[in-house]
Amino acid sequence: MSSFAQQATWIWYPGDYEIWLSNKMQNRRTERGTFFPVFWKMDNHYVLMDFYKTFTLQQPKEVNIYAEGTYNVKLDGKAFEGMPSVITVPAGTHKINIKVFSQATVPAIFVQGKTIVSDSGWLLTFEDKEWIDETGKTSDISATQWVNADYGSFNNPLSPPSKFSLPTQPQAPVSIIKNGNTSLIDFGKETFGFLQLHGIKGKGNINIIYGESKEEANSDDHAETLDRIQFNSTVNTDSTLPLSKAFRYVKVETTSGITVDSVSMLYEYADVKDKGSFACSDTLINKIYDVSKYTLHLATREFFIDGIKRDRWVWSGDAYQSYLMNYYLMNDDETVKRTIYALRGKDPVTAHINTIMDYTFYWFLSVYDYYMYSGDSAFIKQNYPRMQTLMDYCLSRRNKDGLMEGLPGDWVFIDWAAGLSKQGEVSFEQMLFCRSLETMALCATINNDATNANKYKQLAADIKQKLFSYYWNEQKKALVHSRVNGVASNNVTRYANMFGIFFNYFTPAQKQEIKTSVLLNDSVQKITTPYMRFYELEALCALGEQQHVLQQMKDYWGGMLQLGATSFWEEYDPSKKGAEHYAMYGRPFGKSLCHAWGASPIYLLGKYYLGVSPTSSGYATYKIEPSLGGLQWMEGTVPTPHGNIALRCDTKQIKIRSTEGEGTLRIKSKTIPKGNNISVKNIDDNIYEISIKPGIDYIINYKGL
Amino acid sequence: MSSFAQQATWIWYPGDYEIWLSNKMQNRRTERGTFFPVFWKMDNHYVLMDFYKTFTLQQPKEVNIYAEGTYNVKLDGKAFEGMPSVITVPAGTHKINIKVFSQATVPAIFVQGKTIVSDSGWLLTFEDKEWIDETGKTSDISATQWVNADYGSFNNPLSPPSKFSLPTQPQAPVSIIKNGNTSLIDFGKETFGFLQLHGIKGKGNINIIYGESKEEANSDDHAETLDRIQFNSTVNTDSTLPLSKAFRYVKVETTSGITVDSVSMLYEYADVKDKGSFACSDTLINKIYDVSKYTLHLATREFFIDGIKRDRWVWSGDAYQSYLMNYYLMNDDETVKRTIYALRGKDPVTAHINTIMDYTFYWFLSVYDYYMYSGDSAFIKQNYPRMQTLMDYCLSRRNKDGLMEGLPGDWVFIDWAAGLSKQGEVSFEQMLFCRSLETMALCATINNDATNANKYKQLAADIKQKLFSYYWNEQKKALVHSRVNGVASNNVTRYANMFGIFFNYFTPAQKQEIKTSVLLNDSVQKITTPYMRFYELEALCALGEQQHVLQQMKDYWGGMLQLGATSFWEEYDPSKKGAEHYAMYGRPFGKSLCHAWGASPIYLLGKYYLGVSPTSSGYATYKIEPSLGGLQWMEGTVPTPHGNIALRCDTKQIKIRSTEGEGTLRIKSKTIPKGNNISVKNIDDNIYEISIKPGIDYIINYKGL
Repeated sequence: MSSFAQQATWIWYPGDYEIWLSNKMQNRRTERGTFFPVFWKMDNHYVLMDFYKTFTLQQPKEVNIYAEGTYNVKLDGKAFEGMPSVITVPAGTHKINIKVFSQATVPAIFVQGKTIVSDSGWLLTFEDKEWIDETGKTSDISATQWVNADYGSFNNPLSPPSKFSLPTQPQAPVSIIKNGNTSLIDFGKETFGFLQLHGIKGKGNINIIYGESKEEANSDDHAETLDRIQFNSTVNTDSTLPLSKAFRYVKVETTSGITVDSVSMLYEYADVKDKGSFACSDTLINKIYDVSKYTLHLATREFFIDGIKRDRWVWSGDAYQSYLMNYYLMNDDETVKRTIYALRGKDPVTAHINTIMDYTFYWFLSVYDYYMYSGDSAFIKQNYPRMQTLMDYCLSRRNKDGLMEGLPGDWVFIDWAAGLSKQGEVSFEQMLFCRSLETMALCATINNDATNANKYKQLAADIKQKLFSYYWNEQKKALVHSRVNGVASNNVTRYANMFGIFFNYFTPAQKQEIKTSVLLNDSVQKITTPYMRFYELEALCALGEQQHVLQQMKDYWGGMLQLGATSFWEEYDPSKKGAEHYAMYGRPFGKSLCHAWGASPIYLLGKYYLGVSPTSSGYATYKIEPSLGGLQWMEGTVPTPHGNIALRCDTKQIKIRSTEGEGTLRIKSKTIPKGNNISVKNIDDNIYEISIKPGIDYIINYKGL
Repeated sequence: MSSFAQQATWIWYPGDYEIWLSNKMQNRRTERGTFFPVFWKMDNHYVLMDFYKTFTLQQPKEVNIYAEGTYNVKLDGKAFEGMPSVITVPAGTHKINIKVFSQATVPAIFVQGKTIVSDSGWLLTFEDKEWIDETGKTSDISATQWVNADYGSFNNPLSPPSKFSLPTQPQAPVSIIKNGNTSLIDFGKETFGFLQLHGIKGKGNINIIYGESKEEANSDDHAETLDRIQFNSTVNTDSTLPLSKAFRYVKVETTSGITVDSVSMLYEYADVKDKGSFACSDTLINKIYDVSKYTLHLATREFFIDGIKRDRWVWSGDAYQSYLMNYYLMNDDETVKRTIYALRGKDPVTAHINTIMDYTFYWFLSVYDYYMYSGDSAFIKQNYPRMQTLMDYCLSRRNKDGLMEGLPGDWVFIDWAAGLSKQGEVSFEQMLFCRSLETMALCATINNDATNANKYKQLAADIKQKLFSYYWNEQKKALVHSRVNGVASNNVTRYANMFGIFFNYFTPAQKQEIKTSVLLNDSVQKITTPYMRFYELEALCALGEQQHVLQQMKDYWGGMLQLGATSFWEEYDPSKKGAEHYAMYGRPFGKSLCHAWGASPIYLLGKYYLGVSPTSSGYATYKIEPSLGGLQWMEGTVPTPHGNIALRCDTKQIKIRSTEGEGTLRIKSKTIPKGNNISVKNIDDNIYEISIKPGIDYIINYKGL
């Protein structure tokens, strides 16, 4: 991924547009018609921005300038009069400065000439500190911090960032049941968008009750979202409701004196294309994969959001899973970066991200993951100062033992789980804290900051040592849940244990112990959210339990499908019945029936069945460890920054073709794998490695174990 | 000054509206038609705000709600549907929450009922951290920081803060000289506002060149401000130009084919009334006082700004003097608070205020001065966290000797003075730093923060000790200008020496030495700005040199009047001739001819001739030390928070009447002063003190020394 755009594009200060757009998006939530905003700090953009770049021209060139805001333009420090829309830059080397003020929207520019264009090569600052002394001389000791411009996909000068909205498509209902003044409309599956009323005539009120389930749409008292409209129209009128909503069903009620001819909707979506794919011999798994895709797409909007009915907010823990799924489906960098920027906000840090301690830690992890999957080191560099100040905040909140413990104002979330203790020093939080410190060390190294890399490494090592000395219970063969007042509890929960497996914090022997003592132990409190199922199943996959996990997927996600789910849920407890499934937070329809974290099979199938993941940044090197997990065959593609890795695999043959990077296929085989263009390395008993080069069709015959 | 408003008023988060308004105001500067913004960081408001207050009602009441932004309303935690404009609050004790999102303008509310009104008793936060767990229970360990609401004088629900603009009045020119297509229009004196063109007809261009001097208006190439307009109108049209400007003269040129019938202007002003006054037996001093008043009024706009032609920005050092003058003229708390908030901006601190080290220090001093003159301890409390983080920034930038030295990015300003060294550790900066630390100690005490009060006291004592051990030169009987690489220079400048006098850092003996060795020593570089003349003359007044200072005022300010000044200038050097006076910054008309700091006689005459100043906060106690300085008589009023102190004084009699506070009149008299209702205390040889109670007319006869 290049750090320079290929064409003229709208540019702005890194993170500012993302924060502005997330303010706009996250304040669209309503609950029963009432505005329902977030409860954490929302940040704001810099209103005044200086942009510059130096160009060398062979010939004088005309340059067109567009800006969002009031602006001036300087050539080599000398201002043009007014706000010029076209300037001529003479031949030679020249510096162009554009300074923009915009209060309501983010200062942004679009510059378009034959060779002079706005792109990420422009440098920006929010304080240029260029004063002049009494003689008119400009200050000569500058401490101005210049950063590279941020940009998106706004390549049209007449479509500036502030005007952006998601595209829409008309959708018609699949059934309508009329009953007097009431119509119950079914759009056939979970959907999202703007309801449209056609042919409204008369005077009166229209009540619209939205439902992800039929029961919800029929519940005037408990439906989570609704609209109430007053009309007075003597001619037929159409109306598109101003706020998009999530629903499958809509109940439209009219008072006497007003009628509505028909109802449709504008489906609103992020235009992000699929690059990855998965198909296999098991039709239920294929169905689960398809509904997962639909779920993830519905929850991928301006940002990766949690769910589409209720919060519609950007939550770090939820987004963390969407990023990982994204790498195996759309592999869209822009939505990842946008979400990471929006979550981080600005300094000063006054609370954990989303107020949740664990969510701060997921944010650190997400930055490094993004680097591994995209290779975008420019983003790491741009973000590093914000990583440092956020980590400073964490470090300032350690307790006397150097551990993270919930202080007033800190939400220790972990999972939605009945009776889960959040008191004291929770092992799960130390696990994520340790991994965050390791991430900081890695990012410090990418930034050539050896001093801090070393500092973070030592801090991480200290926490890791404490994780084992404080929490490992040799009888229980597991990390216990927490310490309270310095005393470790006897309670074992799954959280820290499963993360320790794919973080590779345990020895191979410990991993096997934990598999039995925790992961496959029914007496340890079960997980009921797809959110933590994600990590539980990942841990099992990391232990080679693909066959077991496949069955779990079929039971758990298949269970939702059997109940008629058209998208996956926030929480699923097979022991519940009927409309009980829709309740949460003490509200009959409080549960979200389309929650991003429900789509985790995308990630599991891509990473642990197709078995593809990067081993260095941007898939420069990667591994392929396919695992059929009992399937007869599977095939799919995994997207890489500039292409993809295509794979088909059955019990006897593997076909691979990649477009970039150096791959290492690792397979188990009773006999030596064979094929054209392959050289086989025997690693261990029956384990073989084959190097995969781009642009070559590999057909490898093997005999699976 | 009460911390509770008396009526319903628009309320917002402290500082946010001030920052928003200053962004708007400070980005109106143009230079020759080009947008010319500030070079420091402009901050931004919190876009999402939670407001609440608890009320107890005897009877149910209707309450009207207005908000700038999208909002919800909760009663005892339960939301009303939609955005209600009227709610009914039942009898009993109830909590009302209103949460507002507004991106483009500052979230603000206006609540009006019989007993329930929006005022500064409402509490606000930008992060309420009120999450709910999986059972629907709200978090019970809150760390939410609530602060009292800020407000201004927006008492009309239909005139919200974002719609505010200064009032205007039509003004006509006093003379017009026509010459072909060119008219030179004279408004008779320096003024400010929107030019109006009447009866425009035809097609063509109109060039408008503004001038504070006739020479500037006639200089197409060098005038600092101008407007160029294109018109195409077949009927007579009037036009008011969109940006207000400063000028006395305007040259209007039309191209052939277009005509303008006449020109007038809308004078734009802050509607802040005078409460103080001064008159005396010397007509030149009276004229200087009147022109000073006009100068200060012109530079008192939404904020106290520097000058009206050019910058029109909020500069801390300039504003500091306006505050002090304000206390003796308009005594308008709102403009002071608004300016202090705007200057401070928000965390994180990334630079000195206006990038200038000295200007950071003046900001600290201004907060405490405001407390002394207004008694507004609520403001000190609201501001204290911002004072602490700004001081943390300063403390983090001390050099190895614990002194403030210009680091890259720091502008060490001191004064506009040719050849003035800014290198190394400048004594003047340590002087202001020391005073800032003392101010912090005082404000910490007001905030019951004994630990920090002690810390700041010790830090101040350390700097004070170094000021004398490092900079005092016993031969020169003065503080030297600076140390470079640990070596004190031999150069004496006036700055630190004059501040040390009214800061009372010197012994009485040192003060007398400095008077001779520095203040009255012509071989020490002279001051040419009214800015530093302010402090130089203050130091002389503090030494009892009112007679000398009176003559200086007459020479210096009188000198500008003799040159035809109708407002006082940014800089005045009597040795210059003709249009040379208008040049600065290497530009022929670069100098501002209406600069707030030119108005300092208001302060000097009020504080050191009428001799009135508070000795405890809000004039609870105050002193009156009148000094005629050679005048035959003088009279005037000095405003106090809820009234004023009126004084008339000649060489034989003093009349005083005050409306609040406990005053101490201190006079020198050869004989014991006499009068009704007075009791006289002999303090020292010929020095007497008389206690002044409010509401009593004192007529005191004495025999001046």
